Amino acid sequence: MGIEETYQRRDKELSAIGSDPTGGLTRLLYTDVWKQGQEYVKAEMEAFGMQTRYDEIGNLFGRIEGSELPEETVMSGSHIDTVVNGGHLDGQFGILAAVTAMEYLVATHGQPKRSMEVLSLAEEEGSRFPTVFWGSKNLMGEANNEAVADIADAKGLKFVDEMRRQGFDFKAEQKMREDIKAFVEIHIEQGNVLENQELQIGVVNNIAGQRRYTVILEGQANHAGTTPMGYRRDTVYAFSKICVEGIEKAKAIGDPLVLTFGKVIPKPNTVNVVPGEVEFSIDCRHTDAEALKAFTAELEALMHRIAEEDGLEIDIDLWMDEAPVPMDEGIVSAIEKKAKEGNYKYRLMHSGAGHDSQVIAPHYPSAMIFVPSIGGISHNPAEETNMEDLIEGIKILADTLYELAYV
Amino acid sequence: MGIEETYQRRDKELSAIGSDPTGGLTRLLYTDVWKQGQEYVKAEMEAFGMQTRYDEIGNLFGRIEGSELPEETVMSGSHIDTVVNGGHLDGQFGILAAVTAMEYLVATHGQPKRSMEVLSLAEEEGSRFPTVFWGSKNLMGEANNEAVADIADAKGLKFVDEMRRQGFDFKAEQKMREDIKAFVEIHIEQGNVLENQELQIGVVNNIAGQRRYTVILEGQANHAGTTPMGYRRDTVYAFSKICVEGIEKAKAIGDPLVLTFGKVIPKPNTVNVVPGEVEFSIDCRHTDAEALKAFTAELEALMHRIAEEDGLEIDIDLWMDEAPVPMDEGIVSAIEKKAKEGNYKYRLMHSGAGHDSQVIAPHYPSAMIFVPSIGGISHNPAEETNMEDLIEGIKILADTLYELAYV
Repeated sequence: MGIEETYQRRDKELSAIGSDPTGGLTRLLYTDVWKQGQEYVKAEMEAFGMQTRYDEIGNLFGRIEGSELPEETVMSGSHIDTVVNGGHLDGQFGILAAVTAMEYLVATHGQPKRSMEVLSLAEEEGSRFPTVFWGSKNLMGEANNEAVADIADAKGLKFVDEMRRQGFDFKAEQKMREDIKAFVEIHIEQGNVLENQELQIGVVNNIAGQRRYTVILEGQANHAGTTPMGYRRDTVYAFSKICVEGIEKAKAIGDPLVLTFGKVIPKPNTVNVVPGEVEFSIDCRHTDAEALKAFTAELEALMHRIAEEDGLEIDIDLWMDEAPVPMDEGIVSAIEKKAKEGNYKYRLMHSGAGHDSQVIAPHYPSAMIFVPSIGGISHNPAEETNMEDLIEGIKILADTLYELAYV
Repeated sequence: MGIEETYQRRDKELSAIGSDPTGGLTRLLYTDVWKQGQEYVKAEMEAFGMQTRYDEIGNLFGRIEGSELPEETVMSGSHIDTVVNGGHLDGQFGILAAVTAMEYLVATHGQPKRSMEVLSLAEEEGSRFPTVFWGSKNLMGEANNEAVADIADAKGLKFVDEMRRQGFDFKAEQKMREDIKAFVEIHIEQGNVLENQELQIGVVNNIAGQRRYTVILEGQANHAGTTPMGYRRDTVYAFSKICVEGIEKAKAIGDPLVLTFGKVIPKPNTVNVVPGEVEFSIDCRHTDAEALKAFTAELEALMHRIAEEDGLEIDIDLWMDEAPVPMDEGIVSAIEKKAKEGNYKYRLMHSGAGHDSQVIAPHYPSAMIFVPSIGGISHNPAEETNMEDLIEGIKILADTLYELAYV
């Protein structure tokens, strides 16, 4: 069987585990379908001779022992969990691509010089319990067990009970493996850059940092008919000035800076009342920590100035502040070298979305490969990538793993 | 008893009918407390010799026959119904002020030359059934019986059944009385102009026209991290440009133009998604029909331009288009003359809110008197006016009725 047939079969079979009547895929941490998904991957790994094991919390590993440097491990993988009613590529593609690429390498080139492992991480999405990166943080010895000790899902089922029901438990000790020499994650882009530029491969050299805010402006609710313009303290007008000025500044600075005002909730949100309060969100990302800090500081100053000019109270809550994570130059170069040699239509790019690699990269040399997302859509049953692009992705992953594990 | 004591007693007694545990007042059309309210007003009218009657639908009239020109009627009044959890002044003050002013006039000056009537209209607020101005429209012979034939309140109780339960029914014939020579309505301002300018009386010369829109912008929902600024079709950004440009234009034109973007609903309304759709409302008012038309045409053009520039679809729905209603120059002059003579702290002004007078004024010479609203608040249990201002209002209403009915 070729790469394409094998991948297509695996994608079809794994996508059936947790499929929604709507055509979407829902596979949440420590549910029965989640366990079935891991067991399916485990069986596929064992079918071509991988040694498999779970760690304590349910991360799954499939291993091919290296012939010359078995104590050096080259790893590839992604997460098995999905969002609610998600698609069949986010996470899942990264696992199946790694299994398929390693199977191909072993079939073609035999035992690798270094050990190779596929990693099927327990959780990344944070879509069942209020925790994210549970899989990769446990891998790195960074998980906070206390933070999940009392959390429960929307039905009130406790994290700890569900973990134990599936046969897993907290790690006795949070520590990191010393043998991993490289980690490569392949993922759908979840954006529209590759599609718009008619490229097949993104070589990811940075995962953007992000800052998220909730901002509340308080003015005065007034009758829309009886309150002259000069007597108003209109918070939607002030929000609009912040949004226009902020986005114009962001556009002037340009890529890789992005700025989004995604949530706007005026009060009372009625046609004939001047809105006396508005709550809105800010999501700002950049690949450079200093640039992100400088821009958001400017944005904060702008908001304070407009609030003051309009006689409004303002509350600015910075509730997420994640630094950018650069990928390893050596691995990025290895992927780029293979992209050039293989005449792949590729570019270097950053990731605007968060990924397991951002947890892993600070500890092990890591990089990511992107394949295009049709229409930039993800976290949705309509999430799709042309089969040709998926196969190109698996091929360059195999080329890269060859470079890292066989040479 | 003086005007103040009498008014205070009546306000206290009538406010007890329909009072909420929260301190608010809820007296909805054709409820039992509504009928009790009308009966209370009827008894107060009869107590000083008024002849009373209901029309078919439940508008209440109290009449003092004129001595010389009994076929010419000078009328004053407002509506007995309230919004849900409203205040004790909106509507109620106009009725009790008219009763108290006419009682004072009869006690002081005896029988008037022309007939005087207090009008306690059945409904103005539209707060129980989806219909407004049911009282004044029936008075003017303009009610649409078919439009209410099948409507029901939030509990499913039918308008027609509730009307009949209280002993009322549709008018056999929609026609207008020929004897009304003047109508004066006193009302709280529901705005903050008089308060800000430290005035006690507003002589209303116009009720503003209003246009209301629902606008939907459609772009594309995208990942807030992975979509560069240049690839976005961000509807909240486009809305913000419309809001800023629209309000800046409105402020440049100035009073009496007002423009409000009161409702904003982005989709999906989430921090990390570029909003692919936004629905928003526009409420625009002006006392001049042509100016209102010209400004909203400019606003529509501006919205089309911004939607086109940003590659968005736009749907603009003008669902309310009410022309301004000028008050009668003769009655306005009569009120202003009395305001000058009595050294009232007054100004000529327009009403930005709708009132029964806008239904009545196109047919009978009409005008309105405003008293200040503390903080501009209305439709709220906190709706309040200083007692001194209320009494000044009753006095100028009495002065005006004297001018119209006795001279």
